[in-house]
Amino acid sequence: MIDILVPEDRLRECATNALVAGGMRPDDAELTARVLVLADMFGIRTHGISRIPQYLDRVRLGGIDAQADVAVERVAPGLALVNGLNGIGPLVAMKGLEAALDGARQAGIGAAFVRGSNHFGPIIPYALMAAEKGYASIIGSNATTTIAPWGGRDTRVGNNPLGIGVPNPGGDPIILDMAMSVAARAKIRSLLKSGEQLPSGWAADSEGKPTTDPAAALAGFLLPFGGHKGYGLAVMVDLLAGLLSGAAFLTKVNAWDKDPGVAQDLGHFFILIDASKLGPASWLHSRMEEFRAIVRDTPAADPGAPVMTPGEREMRILAKSRQHGVAIAEIDYVSIGGRVAT
Amino acid sequence: MIDILVPEDRLRECATNALVAGGMRPDDAELTARVLVLADMFGIRTHGISRIPQYLDRVRLGGIDAQADVAVERVAPGLALVNGLNGIGPLVAMKGLEAALDGARQAGIGAAFVRGSNHFGPIIPYALMAAEKGYASIIGSNATTTIAPWGGRDTRVGNNPLGIGVPNPGGDPIILDMAMSVAARAKIRSLLKSGEQLPSGWAADSEGKPTTDPAAALAGFLLPFGGHKGYGLAVMVDLLAGLLSGAAFLTKVNAWDKDPGVAQDLGHFFILIDASKLGPASWLHSRMEEFRAIVRDTPAADPGAPVMTPGEREMRILAKSRQHGVAIAEIDYVSIGGRVAT
Repeated sequence: MIDILVPEDRLRECATNALVAGGMRPDDAELTARVLVLADMFGIRTHGISRIPQYLDRVRLGGIDAQADVAVERVAPGLALVNGLNGIGPLVAMKGLEAALDGARQAGIGAAFVRGSNHFGPIIPYALMAAEKGYASIIGSNATTTIAPWGGRDTRVGNNPLGIGVPNPGGDPIILDMAMSVAARAKIRSLLKSGEQLPSGWAADSEGKPTTDPAAALAGFLLPFGGHKGYGLAVMVDLLAGLLSGAAFLTKVNAWDKDPGVAQDLGHFFILIDASKLGPASWLHSRMEEFRAIVRDTPAADPGAPVMTPGEREMRILAKSRQHGVAIAEIDYVSIGGRVAT
Repeated sequence: MIDILVPEDRLRECATNALVAGGMRPDDAELTARVLVLADMFGIRTHGISRIPQYLDRVRLGGIDAQADVAVERVAPGLALVNGLNGIGPLVAMKGLEAALDGARQAGIGAAFVRGSNHFGPIIPYALMAAEKGYASIIGSNATTTIAPWGGRDTRVGNNPLGIGVPNPGGDPIILDMAMSVAARAKIRSLLKSGEQLPSGWAADSEGKPTTDPAAALAGFLLPFGGHKGYGLAVMVDLLAGLLSGAAFLTKVNAWDKDPGVAQDLGHFFILIDASKLGPASWLHSRMEEFRAIVRDTPAADPGAPVMTPGEREMRILAKSRQHGVAIAEIDYVSIGGRVAT
């Protein structure tokens, strides 16, 4: 696979055009492209512009409505209910983020509970946008079920991602963005292809027994990180993102890969806190830098691998992408209509 | 150790009296006792009324101020900054919970960021009180450092507990309350006493190498659950609870067991969401029951151990405690002035 560097603006323009060609309104396409290009800028290519053809395939099959007019209902000064009406995930999520921001501007803290949505990409782009405006964030989504409840042998819980971000005026925010399984199904699929075994603890077979065989794992289910604790967290994310929002939850979420023409009714939540109400920017910046210094200063178990704060690797890739252009696979760029100089 | 059953009201009265005798105002003592007795009612005896002698020892040494007049500053309709002024932890936390509730009543969502506090017990009592009023909650605290950052070999992060609760009008709420290490130091101490080895994955020695020797583990540090993910979550809880609140964070938190006469300046956060703004009580109840049924209905890997939702075990113990009285150790009851019929 050949990699190329594309300037951020050009990649965003190209992605916007592809989404408009797929049926989105230009403003909606621009919001969606902003999220997907940020994912690529963080180095998360599996959740970046490479998803556009898949999203648009589902539009063509009637599984997603590219023209959905996302509805925002303000139910309290700090609280909004958002109905994505089966729109493209990152668009629905951006409307949710904006609704939560509106609430936080009014009340110091704001939240949006979002239903009728689809796969919204990684969380880190939303947490970054919030942090750059001075807001701390707690963001989550439910997902198609891939994990068995702890002690169970049937997939009933999604690999529900959870993100937490804290702003740092004039410096890098600290952002955690994690899913609930030890490893993603995509990784297991690639081990199957290469004929390798899984590390133990990643997955169970269909009987609920631990397995290191990738085929048995794919027929079985993913194990949550940290055993019952990761399972518990996956449940709570679904309760906040799916149940409280009025979306589908647990096994009621439709699997887009099995049924691409059917609406998923995913749910998300966005909680934003206006950090400027808690103290001045200079106070927050100096505390964030001191916090980071204490963590980084930890003697490393392996001197070649210094200790990092959550999201530090992604923030470094983002800085590089901003400086030198976004590294993506040429094939992905071409798939959204990008032209490569020859 | 002899166990006894004490009616809830009597245990609360006894705990309140002990706290008043230790220097607290009666109203403050009652709030503190409510939290500690609830901990015992959930079966979490390590965080219940057995802590009172320890709290009061620290009061006598000047490490905690039993008369602290906790200060609440409302900085936005939904947002409060609380300064515990080194009061007894559960009292400070109850003031934080109330301030967050006030915000959520105004804005639909409310938060309190609390500094100047001490050990506040388990999270589940606060999440239960919120749920019984119809509020979802996200609650966290930082703590004395016991965990090394992932890839590090020095304790720099606390075993920062995180709780999430979702109400269920007319039924049991679902509440997760977890700390960030695989196992608590107390468990390792008891294995040292009994001459047993640790399971692998619990702890590392002072060089950062995994160990199953309890003595080496106690000289080293606890490992976070789920490796880098649990570590990341511990960092984010400290950023929300310690850094944003204006409290101490990471290694700046004083260890009460090493320095009982010095203020810890712990931080907490309480985020509360008024679930009644999201939909009617009957809607929420039926969704919660359906959610729970889907989870419980999962075929179990071990037919003798049915799948549970987070906090289910604790909710069952609570129901028993309410019905039959609170099971506690006689020695703990006597230590707070309780009289046992002979």
